[in-house]
Amino acid sequence: MLNKLLITGAGGGLGTVCRDRLGHLARTVRLADRDGLGEAGATEEIVHCDLGDKAAVAAMVDGCDGIVHLGGQSVEAPWETIRNANIDGMVNLYEAARKSPVTPRIVYASSNHAIGFHPQTDRLDAHSPTRPDGFYGVSKVFGEALARMYFDKFGIETACVRVGSSFPEPRNHRMLSTWMSYDDFVRLIERVFAVPRLGCPIVYGASDNDAAWWDNREVAYLGWRPQDNAEAFRARIDAEMDPPPADDVNAMYQGGAFCRDGIHEA
Amino acid sequence: MLNKLLITGAGGGLGTVCRDRLGHLARTVRLADRDGLGEAGATEEIVHCDLGDKAAVAAMVDGCDGIVHLGGQSVEAPWETIRNANIDGMVNLYEAARKSPVTPRIVYASSNHAIGFHPQTDRLDAHSPTRPDGFYGVSKVFGEALARMYFDKFGIETACVRVGSSFPEPRNHRMLSTWMSYDDFVRLIERVFAVPRLGCPIVYGASDNDAAWWDNREVAYLGWRPQDNAEAFRARIDAEMDPPPADDVNAMYQGGAFCRDGIHEA
Amino acid sequence: MLNKLLITGAGGGLGTVCRDRLGHLARTVRLADRDGLGEAGATEEIVHCDLGDKAAVAAMVDGCDGIVHLGGQSVEAPWETIRNANIDGMVNLYEAARKSPVTPRIVYASSNHAIGFHPQTDRLDAHSPTRPDGFYGVSKVFGEALARMYFDKFGIETACVRVGSSFPEPRNHRMLSTWMSYDDFVRLIERVFAVPRLGCPIVYGASDNDAAWWDNREVAYLGWRPQDNAEAFRARIDAEMDPPPADDVNAMYQGGAFCRDGIHEA
Amino acid sequence: MLNKLLITGAGGGLGTVCRDRLGHLARTVRLADRDGLGEAGATEEIVHCDLGDKAAVAAMVDGCDGIVHLGGQSVEAPWETIRNANIDGMVNLYEAARKSPVTPRIVYASSNHAIGFHPQTDRLDAHSPTRPDGFYGVSKVFGEALARMYFDKFGIETACVRVGSSFPEPRNHRMLSTWMSYDDFVRLIERVFAVPRLGCPIVYGASDNDAAWWDNREVAYLGWRPQDNAEAFRARIDAEMDPPPADDVNAMYQGGAFCRDGIHEA
Amino acid sequence: MLNKLLITGAGGGLGTVCRDRLGHLARTVRLADRDGLGEAGATEEIVHCDLGDKAAVAAMVDGCDGIVHLGGQSVEAPWETIRNANIDGMVNLYEAARKSPVTPRIVYASSNHAIGFHPQTDRLDAHSPTRPDGFYGVSKVFGEALARMYFDKFGIETACVRVGSSFPEPRNHRMLSTWMSYDDFVRLIERVFAVPRLGCPIVYGASDNDAAWWDNREVAYLGWRPQDNAEAFRARIDAEMDPPPADDVNAMYQGGAFCRDGIHEA
Amino acid sequence: MLNKLLITGAGGGLGTVCRDRLGHLARTVRLADRDGLGEAGATEEIVHCDLGDKAAVAAMVDGCDGIVHLGGQSVEAPWETIRNANIDGMVNLYEAARKSPVTPRIVYASSNHAIGFHPQTDRLDAHSPTRPDGFYGVSKVFGEALARMYFDKFGIETACVRVGSSFPEPRNHRMLSTWMSYDDFVRLIERVFAVPRLGCPIVYGASDNDAAWWDNREVAYLGWRPQDNAEAFRARIDAEMDPPPADDVNAMYQGGAFCRDGIHEA
Repeated sequence: MLNKLLITGAGGGLGTVCRDRLGHLARTVRLADRDGLGEAGATEEIVHCDLGDKAAVAAMVDGCDGIVHLGGQSVEAPWETIRNANIDGMVNLYEAARKSPVTPRIVYASSNHAIGFHPQTDRLDAHSPTRPDGFYGVSKVFGEALARMYFDKFGIETACVRVGSSFPEPRNHRMLSTWMSYDDFVRLIERVFAVPRLGCPIVYGASDNDAAWWDNREVAYLGWRPQDNAEAFRARIDAEMDPPPADDVNAMYQGGAFCRDGIHEA
Repeated sequence: MLNKLLITGAGGGLGTVCRDRLGHLARTVRLADRDGLGEAGATEEIVHCDLGDKAAVAAMVDGCDGIVHLGGQSVEAPWETIRNANIDGMVNLYEAARKSPVTPRIVYASSNHAIGFHPQTDRLDAHSPTRPDGFYGVSKVFGEALARMYFDKFGIETACVRVGSSFPEPRNHRMLSTWMSYDDFVRLIERVFAVPRLGCPIVYGASDNDAAWWDNREVAYLGWRPQDNAEAFRARIDAEMDPPPADDVNAMYQGGAFCRDGIHEA
Repeated sequence: MLNKLLITGAGGGLGTVCRDRLGHLARTVRLADRDGLGEAGATEEIVHCDLGDKAAVAAMVDGCDGIVHLGGQSVEAPWETIRNANIDGMVNLYEAARKSPVTPRIVYASSNHAIGFHPQTDRLDAHSPTRPDGFYGVSKVFGEALARMYFDKFGIETACVRVGSSFPEPRNHRMLSTWMSYDDFVRLIERVFAVPRLGCPIVYGASDNDAAWWDNREVAYLGWRPQDNAEAFRARIDAEMDPPPADDVNAMYQGGAFCRDGIHEA
Repeated sequence: MLNKLLITGAGGGLGTVCRDRLGHLARTVRLADRDGLGEAGATEEIVHCDLGDKAAVAAMVDGCDGIVHLGGQSVEAPWETIRNANIDGMVNLYEAARKSPVTPRIVYASSNHAIGFHPQTDRLDAHSPTRPDGFYGVSKVFGEALARMYFDKFGIETACVRVGSSFPEPRNHRMLSTWMSYDDFVRLIERVFAVPRLGCPIVYGASDNDAAWWDNREVAYLGWRPQDNAEAFRARIDAEMDPPPADDVNAMYQGGAFCRDGIHEA
Repeated sequence: MLNKLLITGAGGGLGTVCRDRLGHLARTVRLADRDGLGEAGATEEIVHCDLGDKAAVAAMVDGCDGIVHLGGQSVEAPWETIRNANIDGMVNLYEAARKSPVTPRIVYASSNHAIGFHPQTDRLDAHSPTRPDGFYGVSKVFGEALARMYFDKFGIETACVRVGSSFPEPRNHRMLSTWMSYDDFVRLIERVFAVPRLGCPIVYGASDNDAAWWDNREVAYLGWRPQDNAEAFRARIDAEMDPPPADDVNAMYQGGAFCRDGIHEA
Repeated sequence: MLNKLLITGAGGGLGTVCRDRLGHLARTVRLADRDGLGEAGATEEIVHCDLGDKAAVAAMVDGCDGIVHLGGQSVEAPWETIRNANIDGMVNLYEAARKSPVTPRIVYASSNHAIGFHPQTDRLDAHSPTRPDGFYGVSKVFGEALARMYFDKFGIETACVRVGSSFPEPRNHRMLSTWMSYDDFVRLIERVFAVPRLGCPIVYGASDNDAAWWDNREVAYLGWRPQDNAEAFRARIDAEMDPPPADDVNAMYQGGAFCRDGIHEA
């Protein structure tokens, strides 16, 4: 059992799920976000922190032996926004982890947008080359590389989870391939903190979807078995909307609409 | 939903299954075979066509936005028979598709005999080299190559299904590996016409058999999950016959008895 | 159905399981061990045999058309012990098989210690290089190579089963990955003697564990589907003991504690 | 040394090279083409033969223990032309070989157009999937599959040479990658008839060009080392013409202009 | 021939080589660095530019159809230094390229430190996972990912050259593996601007060293053939210094001493 | 420079070459064989030793920091002979190395007969599965596994050299593929003792033969470049003998005649 688990981005969608569902993993859960988060529960601590603020990040990380790092910018944005939250923010987090008296094990919320430009007819595994689909995706490749460096050089273990689409239910045809249920995400986090030796693996964060594109065979040793399947929602989605035409980016590339976006100017 | 689905070879074993089970995929189903087929149902059309007859094939294909191409010669035969039905017949079909005002999506019934000379101890995937076991198998390699060319050059999408053994039940020990149930075949056809982007994949047409030789990981994006398993019939087969001796082609090669056949002289 | 099935090491843990559970595979079961084994059942024969004794081994093998070879030294030991049982013993067994009037099909109990020095974060398949973790592991690499030679040269078929940890229940955290239930082992033996053509495959002997390290895709043609899962015992193990620290060999290497052992001096 | 070497297509470009340069391989060289070929030399025989004529092909092949099969249609053409020369012609040739009292070893002039739709930025080897770029390319995939079947079933050995561009000198920028000098081609034929065991390999027929796309590592056992290099002609080509623009098929696909061609109507 | 070739970092070691040796590639060469660079030659332009200054970078890039991007921080440094030059600097450069009226082809000087934590006993190719050995190496992974995104999204072609050790001569034992001669570097740049289609490849920048670790087979289509070999300098290096002991990072990891460095604090 | 280099099997063919040519690698060379070896040179020591004699081997190894282990049984023989020299002999050698005050680096003369049953049309690298062709070949697989275990467990570095055919000149057609010249062997030994970090690699011991079957890409870091080529002797061999017929083991399998041999009875 962890002593203190830090959850960054705790006010977001996945963050709220983690707050509700991961309490059993640690004696204390420290919740962090830029603001909000309401009142702390009995075994909770609340921290407000801008990831671009080095000293604030150091204080946030101090004393935690587990981190679920969901914080940062989570969709495409102007470069300055991405850089502050996802580039500087990651450096600040890992520097804090390196200097902390207790070395934390980390879950890093990377993204399918690190490989978004692969066509939907390709099946990827952890060795597939990265193909980011925007500044956001490039920042996730950066984060994975940084995590790997801190592992090779300082022994800090990180699970880099390329999150697909994590919502209560899949919202469109593409998500029939990319959806990760909240239950499956929770099961994954539990496994990351359960295995005796984590290393620094790439994990595709998706449920056991019929229409899957991603192959997690390289992390079989985690013992994570997603149990949900987006296929259960296909009929509803078919009823609500047409599938994208074959020459639409939502039908062509794994990253979907991100592949269409131009650069966001500040 | 398709407007008009053409099923060739509609009088054969798999053709009859398709006639009975695929009506929900299209407003109209056009059934084609050299002869027979009885009376047309309410949403059916009947066409008689020799695949070697270019003009007749063009008329048959015209106006269809989906094709399940089961027609042609389906076992070893003298070269002239194979060539007429499976070589010229394929060229006629794809030329017709290319010239048709609406470009159809096609299911092509290729065959395990395209890879029949691989030993039964090898596990194949879509990248395994072809090893045809007779004129019939060579004609299926030809058909797959032709389909790929029409995809690369003209964008016509085809699922090349290397059909194993599709019968109500497996009939001998080899079919414990190669059997594809009718239900699983129907599920596959449904998926081919459901995905927004098909490309031109190789699919191994077999149920989820314990004794499987074939690995469909490259087409995970289809979301096809066969649900039957030939193993359920092993006891019955064991009771009815001895397994082939280890040095029999039925125990050595994936193509079974086709690998023993000599050339069929006209 | 086999005529006469020889089970060596029949007095050991797996041997007892085989004695109890494999009777249906053969008209007669010949049980062999250095001593013990009690009274023979109705269709049983009892043989006492030191594997290092060439003539005794020849007599033991004579007339058997199936062998489950569990005999030999099964943990690390001084070299002379390993050599007698696992090196000379294997040569004696295969020479006897070669000279026997009926060529037996063989199950050879190899071991995960043939690949024990791979880190637990690696996923292995039948093509992964061997990394033995002691004299015992080296003797198992020897046995697999010997079996392969007798197959290539004399056609004797062997399933080399790299046994994980076969006990009634997993006993520690490492066994959550390596455990093979008795039921799954029995199912495997049944499949080896059921397939018409065996060849000389490497099989990883483990149940369908969530925390698996090993990939049996190369032997899909055996149709073996393990059905148990060590995960069911995780809670109990967590309650009984702490997991090994991350820098302990039990958390680092697949071979676990064998990787820590020094050489056993005679 | 061969007894009788048949060269088909002996009146064509490569055929003339073979006539001039391969005389040392056999006691007699039988030259075949539809017509022409002039007067026979001292150790030459002249045969006129349409490859679509089964009896004529049988007579042509009879008694030959080596064949260099350059005959057939060598560029894109209407289907009927391709079928007669490259489909029926191949079946006729291999049927004749099978029935011949002496089984010949065969060099089959396949073509880079069997893989023409791969982008020029891909590096191919013998295991790369076929991607034909027209009827001609599809007929070459057919020929390779037919050759393989006659090898697996009847033991007839064939070297399938995917000829790049064989001219005295490369003629454009694409040929800086695909050029095969006549000398290198002759060296290849010599090796095919020199090795004790040929099998049925795929060989890329290109010189040792700096700008190569193809990797012949799978046929290292042939001991063929091309010694020429199209790079020597780059300056001249640069002086004579502009390179194709980046979005021209000649700069995009390995098959070059064949990838642009539509279907040739009869 | 290019119209205007921009060389960034033109005052550095490789930059000076490029200034001296690449004049024949373009009508005008624009040389850029933070300061210095002396007097412009007849066909040269001099630009002073901080890569972190967005407007200055836009002006520098404007009108160039070729860029050799050597600028930026080229060894480990505090994070803020790396970020300004290699993170923001790259974003500024590619944004400028995207908005430029003429789209430039780019050579990006990446580094072996993007893969520095691979052991020296591993052989890498373009598909090997990245293993950066510090902030500098991580910034190079970032740069490669950014280049790839601008290729997939906007069609800007970049050769990402993982420069080994480019000096007049190798300076120590590790450089016997990593050395790239100036001549070989110049040959590479020439090839990048000569091929009709570049794509966005990873190229290992090293001479044809006997002790090579890197395999450039994926970029054979560039037609680059390095001709120098660090082995010629081994005797001199052996005479001047002892090789590093086997447990020194210079003998263990491809990145050498960078793998030992801690984090540089600002 | 080594302090003391032990050469076992120093009276054999390769041993004599090493005695003559490797003197520059060490201050003292200790030559060992069962008997013979004549008079010691100025910097030589002579030791007589049976490899099956544990104490004698310990004395032989003591104080050596380099070992070229050529000793042992070098062709097929009765099991007892193989076991004494190549099984017990190897255990004795590595136990002596482990206990020696100075840990030696070792060259182990493994053999192509460890992979002899691969067909000659296959191209092997260090990851190819072993396919021994007799007791001798199995003993070499054992030796490689033992060396690997002593590396993983005790850090003893070994180059396992799968020696092809090392004679002054190739003697038959098979050796055109397997020949290793004495010069190339000497170059290899020099490289093994020159590189700072050896690990425990598999090296194929063959010259740069045109007709090569083996690919040493995994040991590029050794910087070994064989410079001789058996092809230079082809004409002479062709003149002296016919090549083996295609169905002779000398034309079928890499191990040649060893694949035909039955078991040698004592």
